[in-house]
Amino acid sequence: MARRLVVIGGDAGGMAAISAARQEDSGLEVIALERTPYTSYSACGIPYVVSGAVDGPDRLIVRTPEQHRANGIDVRTGHEAVALDVEAASVTVRTGDGSYDLGYDALLLGMGGVPIRPPLPGIDLPFVRGVQTLDDAEALLSYASTHSCERVVVVGGGYIGLEMAEAFVQRGMQVTLLEQGAQVMASLDPDLGGLVTAAMERHGIDVRLHAAVTAFEPGTVVTADGPLDADLVVLGIGVRPNSGLAADAGLVLGAKDAVRVDRRQRTSADGVWAAGDCCESRHIVSGQRVHIALGTVANKQARVAGTNIGGGYATFAGVVGTAISKICDTEVSRTGLSSREAEGAGFAAVAVTIEGTTKAGYFPGAGPMTLRLIVERGRGRLLGAQIVGGDGAAMRINACAVAITTGLSVDQIAQLDLAYAPPFSSVWDPILVAARNALTQI
Amino acid sequence: MARRLVVIGGDAGGMAAISAARQEDSGLEVIALERTPYTSYSACGIPYVVSGAVDGPDRLIVRTPEQHRANGIDVRTGHEAVALDVEAASVTVRTGDGSYDLGYDALLLGMGGVPIRPPLPGIDLPFVRGVQTLDDAEALLSYASTHSCERVVVVGGGYIGLEMAEAFVQRGMQVTLLEQGAQVMASLDPDLGGLVTAAMERHGIDVRLHAAVTAFEPGTVVTADGPLDADLVVLGIGVRPNSGLAADAGLVLGAKDAVRVDRRQRTSADGVWAAGDCCESRHIVSGQRVHIALGTVANKQARVAGTNIGGGYATFAGVVGTAISKICDTEVSRTGLSSREAEGAGFAAVAVTIEGTTKAGYFPGAGPMTLRLIVERGRGRLLGAQIVGGDGAAMRINACAVAITTGLSVDQIAQLDLAYAPPFSSVWDPILVAARNALTQI
Repeated sequence: MARRLVVIGGDAGGMAAISAARQEDSGLEVIALERTPYTSYSACGIPYVVSGAVDGPDRLIVRTPEQHRANGIDVRTGHEAVALDVEAASVTVRTGDGSYDLGYDALLLGMGGVPIRPPLPGIDLPFVRGVQTLDDAEALLSYASTHSCERVVVVGGGYIGLEMAEAFVQRGMQVTLLEQGAQVMASLDPDLGGLVTAAMERHGIDVRLHAAVTAFEPGTVVTADGPLDADLVVLGIGVRPNSGLAADAGLVLGAKDAVRVDRRQRTSADGVWAAGDCCESRHIVSGQRVHIALGTVANKQARVAGTNIGGGYATFAGVVGTAISKICDTEVSRTGLSSREAEGAGFAAVAVTIEGTTKAGYFPGAGPMTLRLIVERGRGRLLGAQIVGGDGAAMRINACAVAITTGLSVDQIAQLDLAYAPPFSSVWDPILVAARNALTQI
Repeated sequence: MARRLVVIGGDAGGMAAISAARQEDSGLEVIALERTPYTSYSACGIPYVVSGAVDGPDRLIVRTPEQHRANGIDVRTGHEAVALDVEAASVTVRTGDGSYDLGYDALLLGMGGVPIRPPLPGIDLPFVRGVQTLDDAEALLSYASTHSCERVVVVGGGYIGLEMAEAFVQRGMQVTLLEQGAQVMASLDPDLGGLVTAAMERHGIDVRLHAAVTAFEPGTVVTADGPLDADLVVLGIGVRPNSGLAADAGLVLGAKDAVRVDRRQRTSADGVWAAGDCCESRHIVSGQRVHIALGTVANKQARVAGTNIGGGYATFAGVVGTAISKICDTEVSRTGLSSREAEGAGFAAVAVTIEGTTKAGYFPGAGPMTLRLIVERGRGRLLGAQIVGGDGAAMRINACAVAITTGLSVDQIAQLDLAYAPPFSSVWDPILVAARNALTQI
């Protein structure tokens, strides 16, 4: 009899795992359980559907359930895994009609993340919306089209919050962003976060830091500093690992209650694997276990899990925490450890910051670019990098991510053979300039 | 008495060396000899002055002779070093009025490159112009403004030839590009070179390969395939090392007759150092000595030479041959070894090519992007990468350059934590996709 793989979660990660598993074992029976009607879509594209840049939620769908079925995968949409018995190797599945038990030889947990919804009075009012799933996006667009929405309050100053704020600005709405911390983009050093705030303010977004929301009332967001009128509230506070099912089944949890996995993406239970936002990762620089909810990480972990499930051998190298975003005309990216994270991981670190340009200074369209390198004192190893700048600035983070992954020090980085032509860079790319400056400061 | 450093060549490289030398030895006496009236300018910007994108040659000047003099450097423009006596540690300098001998404690050769001018009949006719120096650019612009120039022939399909062809297209002229080889951009694999040709043709440039120019006559370029009408001919055939002075002085030459240097940029003569287009480099992947005439390389070598001249210690790590360019709406970049270079260096190599997009496929403005990885068979080490694509494609080469420099193999590259957000990339960056594909082919 064929081995049976059951996948909980039909998002891109889960489906990538299936593909990798079947490369190893073409006879594998595969059942994928997905509680929503959708499979394999780009949740990261939702802000751009909301802004109107992308033409409707359907554009984000990479593969429909029907396409997966045509590919021999038993995709069951509207089926939600509600319990796991690792002794019996069985999952309890709830459908619209009832429930059933499903045995597995291998189980992949790909439940993703749960949007954080603080238990505030009024949080379930209809004008308070999340933006995690395609369903959410459709509901939000439908709400916005049937209600007069001029004043939008976005709660949360992380990537999703900023992208949603941009989306509503582009729809011509009046946007207020509330962040309870001292800065937006908490994964940046505070002053770089300040550059992002300034960019948002330039585009008319009313950014309020240290803003504590205490309740929602129809038409009003109540904060510690007073009430705010709002036709629509969007929650962009981030996600926590959707690990309740795993915890109930007795699986070991790790960082931020994400499912603990080893380098092969094995959980603590035999035959049970995990990938994506529901599980943890190892940070290559700090060596610490972290929870980073990003599609890139999910996809790579899923392929590793799939290869192992299919009988092959693969390990996940870990993450350096690379992330990128865009707020109107300002690009933002980061990788490695921030100054605070470096300190937390026990490094003596020096932060080196330079102001450069995205192209040769004399070239039309050259924009400003602030680059920070976070460098290990003495030894000079690059620990982290952050960029805020104009068009073409942010993707320079990838070269830094590779340098961090491979443990380069700033003397090595200062001599990297990086590309130069006036439409792309100064003769000394800002990365080289910053590395040279760092040499005098470590 | 202060030690005296004499620098031959007042281009950015030479001046960078002086700055590094004086960081080590602030009492150094410095004399810089420059045969033109200009110092420290971006020769790479000349095509953009010609196109009109940059507002006149002056914009390319980073620092004038007066500014250098105010900084305590004895810059002597219009002074050309014509002979070197390494036994006597003395340089013979020719000026407009006569000549003099100048002794040195340290000598830096920064003579740069000489534009290649094939000894064809008529090459000295006034409608045949080079574009190496600011003087050339001014003369070319002045010629174009005083003559009716509708038909331009660019000779040479390398970076400078392509950039000049673009420049004249943007000025509204009718442009023919003649390349004697089988492809443009000889540092790309032939089919990627074909993509560049196609891009040029889309913009109306008449690209002729295997085109052998045999002579120039007033108003005509004579080729093996017949005559071509031309109001203006621009030579963009590339440069050879300007090493005649060094050769005459008995210095050892290396790759392509460039001045041989060790890792500290020392030539074979005591107290004589070299940097930039006049000297060779070591290729990090092949281990071979190469001649790569690029401003980035020149500047790094110059800093190394300067540090050593000043009494410090520095070595130049070498090059991976990274280069980037832009032809109208098409970006081009390359790093490491091409397929032919890999074979020439004794590697068994596999070329893996993918078609990706510059942003998420559904994102507005996503452009096509062809990425080739050249991978060592068996071991899987990345040897080279080439990119041809739309806006945002080419700078991805930097991540590849770092991966090549650090010796990463495609299994490591496939797991790199590269940046992802829909305005910048697919969830699997094309680099990751290509590395994954390579895993199945090596």
